[in-house]
Amino acid sequence: MNVFIEPIAKLINKFSSLPGVGSKTAQRYAYKVISMSEEEAEEFAEAIISAKRKVHYCAECGNFTDEDVCEICKNRSKEIICVVKEPKDVLALEKADRFNGVYHVLHGTINPIEGVGPNDIRIKELLARISDGVTKEVIMATNPDVEGEATAMYIAKLIKPLGIKVTRIAHGVAVGQDIEYADIGSLTRALSDRREL
Amino acid sequence: MNVFIEPIAKLINKFSSLPGVGSKTAQRYAYKVISMSEEEAEEFAEAIISAKRKVHYCAECGNFTDEDVCEICKNRSKEIICVVKEPKDVLALEKADRFNGVYHVLHGTINPIEGVGPNDIRIKELLARISDGVTKEVIMATNPDVEGEATAMYIAKLIKPLGIKVTRIAHGVAVGQDIEYADIGSLTRALSDRREL
Repeated sequence: MNVFIEPIAKLINKFSSLPGVGSKTAQRYAYKVISMSEEEAEEFAEAIISAKRKVHYCAECGNFTDEDVCEICKNRSKEIICVVKEPKDVLALEKADRFNGVYHVLHGTINPIEGVGPNDIRIKELLARISDGVTKEVIMATNPDVEGEATAMYIAKLIKPLGIKVTRIAHGVAVGQDIEYADIGSLTRALSDRREL
Repeated sequence: MNVFIEPIAKLINKFSSLPGVGSKTAQRYAYKVISMSEEEAEEFAEAIISAKRKVHYCAECGNFTDEDVCEICKNRSKEIICVVKEPKDVLALEKADRFNGVYHVLHGTINPIEGVGPNDIRIKELLARISDGVTKEVIMATNPDVEGEATAMYIAKLIKPLGIKVTRIAHGVAVGQDIEYADIGSLTRALSDRREL
């Protein structure tokens, strides 16, 4: 005899597809859904369908939007473009609330081992955007890993000849972290990228 | 400007209603849903609706089922009834795979502070079930907390006069746990409930 009846097993299976969710957690989520009112459960299902259907990529920057062009691209100056790997990076930067320009989401980084080349991510879209004469600076905010660094370098080489400034976000010891506990990579960067006071 | 567009914000809000899910986790789940294919998202939504609609309480034991009477009640001997607080307790016991009788889910325990009295949980349904002359033993498997113990005692007092054996599951040091790390409550029970070898 199966421990779970079929509708519960199916729902557990769906919850298990979420990132970091194991079978025990999925089970707790499923039991929570069953204890919801029918209205609540319908709203939940509707929210999934509607997020999936309404949300797509912004025609300009590639971030998530439910319009043709996202609110950020519509309302902000395009003089500075911040290039990131994924939509969630835009979110993190927006939360920091220090950048007032627009973004460009690559949807990936160059990764030869996994077969991701420059044509597989949104690099030509970036080049098309900066050809309008408005862009003055491109900030490379890809992750500080091998792929992120390589992608930043690759894009910088393409853009610099066009007379547009290319910068890279700073990396070093995380703010709030004790030097004692910082990893070697961060300490190395903190030393090599030191600045005069 | 809002950090999240409305369909994403709504979905994050729904995921946040799941147990133990904070805003960061809900956000990761929402982004995962958006990255699913439309078909996958629809299946997910459908699983929620269908679990909620098809699953209800077994007319006999009160456990979750998608039929009138659950598979356990349909197929097993009713001589021994194991009484638990919630459907998830049935699940835990079924996974242990040591009990072959039927269950009775109370859907709560007596808790005067929160205004839950004996009539608010499925005690009269239990009494009705055991009046058929088939039941020989009732195992009280409510949790070893104040409410669980009080409920076990209360039900035992009602059933014993009917000539039916009432037992309580054993509590003590958890199997696999070192005595060194056992909590005081478990050690106290382990000593008071010790048995001769």
